[in-house]
Amino acid sequence: MISVIILGAGNVAAHLFNAFDGTEQVHVKQWYNRSIKSIQSYKNKVVITDDLSQLEKADVYIIAVSDDAIANLSTKLPFENRLVVHTSGSVNVHDLDKKNRRGVFYPLQTFSKAATLNFENVPICLEVLDKADLKTLKSLAKTIGSSTHKVNTDQRRALHLAAVFVNNFTNQLYRVAHEITESKGVEFDILKPLILETAKKVQDISPYMAQTGPAKRNDKKTIKKHLQLLESAQHKAIYELLTASIQKTHGRKKL
Amino acid sequence: MISVIILGAGNVAAHLFNAFDGTEQVHVKQWYNRSIKSIQSYKNKVVITDDLSQLEKADVYIIAVSDDAIANLSTKLPFENRLVVHTSGSVNVHDLDKKNRRGVFYPLQTFSKAATLNFENVPICLEVLDKADLKTLKSLAKTIGSSTHKVNTDQRRALHLAAVFVNNFTNQLYRVAHEITESKGVEFDILKPLILETAKKVQDISPYMAQTGPAKRNDKKTIKKHLQLLESAQHKAIYELLTASIQKTHGRKKL
Ligand SMILES: NC(=O)c1ccc[n+]([C@@H]2O[C@H](COP(=O)([O-])OP(=O)(O)OC[C@H]3O[C@@H](n4cnc5c(N)ncnc54)[C@H](OP(=O)(O)O)[C@@H]3O)[C@@H](O)[C@H]2O)c1
Ligand SMILES: NC(=O)c1ccc[n+]([C@@H]2O[C@H](COP(=O)([O-])OP(=O)(O)OC[C@H]3O[C@@H](n4cnc5c(N)ncnc54)[C@H](OP(=O)(O)O)[C@@H]3O)[C@@H](O)[C@H]2O)c1
Repeated sequence: MISVIILGAGNVAAHLFNAFDGTEQVHVKQWYNRSIKSIQSYKNKVVITDDLSQLEKADVYIIAVSDDAIANLSTKLPFENRLVVHTSGSVNVHDLDKKNRRGVFYPLQTFSKAATLNFENVPICLEVLDKADLKTLKSLAKTIGSSTHKVNTDQRRALHLAAVFVNNFTNQLYRVAHEITESKGVEFDILKPLILETAKKVQDISPYMAQTGPAKRNDKKTIKKHLQLLESAQHKAIYELLTASIQKTHGRKKL
Repeated sequence: MISVIILGAGNVAAHLFNAFDGTEQVHVKQWYNRSIKSIQSYKNKVVITDDLSQLEKADVYIIAVSDDAIANLSTKLPFENRLVVHTSGSVNVHDLDKKNRRGVFYPLQTFSKAATLNFENVPICLEVLDKADLKTLKSLAKTIGSSTHKVNTDQRRALHLAAVFVNNFTNQLYRVAHEITESKGVEFDILKPLILETAKKVQDISPYMAQTGPAKRNDKKTIKKHLQLLESAQHKAIYELLTASIQKTHGRKKL
């Protein structure tokens, strides 16, 4: 049995609580948030608190608060030499107060409170300063079905950056597609199966192998037609830049 | 029973043949390709030919050849006043020879011969010049489980263009992510669940609602750090442009 105390009540904290709460191998001893309001509804399931001085002893303290608040919160913990981790993709592990044993428990997924998420689909990237703590974090991730990946700070940062490309930027391309279809009065819904299939394809083959389309074929006629169709200067710029990027990847000349 | 003759032997033709062959409501009377070699292996399942003069009578002729070859092939058909459709997202329906009744049967998906595909996940966009033909094409699509969408030429072009954004360009973002992770020696695999989740999210909520991340939050510190991390000038340009695009969509000031 691993005992855990969660600090913070945002998207990540809530998903972690529910996941840990659903397994017998983890005991969530307490759930802290600076404002008790957001965890009030959990008070029958777990001891809730907004008072750091009340924190008990646990195997792992998980700080899942906004990036900017992590360092400060870690200095306010009223104990030493225990295992304290944050869940951020970009914050330095050394930003945690050195009075405790430090680590990172970074779940590489997109969390929002509304959507349920199976932690089997949440790879967790681990970083520790004290090697012995790796075992604890691995076991903890395993209880909720997550795969674990030991990464160093550079690698975690690269993953966080890559996640912005495959999540935020990809989502923005969906948004641009939505604007394009809407402008002609066609349903965006027609694109949904293609969106899903595009994501599924790279589960098995590399993005390099999966590429198709006018940019890769260097089909100048279609590219020209598409650029003429685009009404927004920004959409045109995105089209040109990503076309050039595909052509660079696949050894075609620049537009 | 709808009788069909397929012309062409590429990705789309092969998938259509297999789908029609799997239903009792369609009879694929013949399969034509200019080079017989590529359809030789099907000769026990269907009458194959490389001779246009041998084409029999059928309810629908589906021309699934390269965009540039559609018009020419349609002029060479040795019959008149029958229903002839192409499968392209961008070719004009009027490019088909007007001696026949013309239409478009555009499957909005990404096809590659290796991957199997359930046509329930392939919306088919229909366009006809003679209204009476719509019914035939709708019934045909229904036999393989596809949804149908009546679109005009402008709308079909917009969908094709939007498809480039959600398929080719999205896939290129996956590729950039692959390059970023590879450069730090981390597995691209760790990103795969996030890729899938990102695509799943917009099946239920709009891309606008699904957006998160530093660009939307206008988190200047993280954006700056990310730009410093990116080694390729082209990757930096993509980061800046898509960040600006997100900020425009969500009413933030430009970088
Ligand atoms: N969301 C994701 O998809 C995701 C994915 C991977 C990693 N992460 C990381 O996980 C961590 C939490 O992210 P999140 O999305 O769960 O955040 P969130 O939903 O925005 O919630 C932020 C939490 O931080 C607390 N907080 C903010 N400022 C604070 C301060 N000065 N002192 C104490 N507590 C403070 C908030 O308390 P109140 O309730 O009182 O406001 C809230 O509980 C971040 O490090 C983030 O980078 C997020
Ligand atoms: N692939 C997709 O994801 C996709 C999706 C939606 C729509 N489409 C559309 O479907 C159509 C076919 O695409 P595809 O991907 O299946 O093509 P493909 O795999 O590249 O196959 C092209 C086919 O066209 C034939 N062809 C090429 N030039 C020809 C010519 N001059 N005369 C006669 N036949 C010729 C080829 O014959 P040989 O075998 O003899 O070379 C081959 O059978 C295109 O209009 C495309 O825009 C494709």
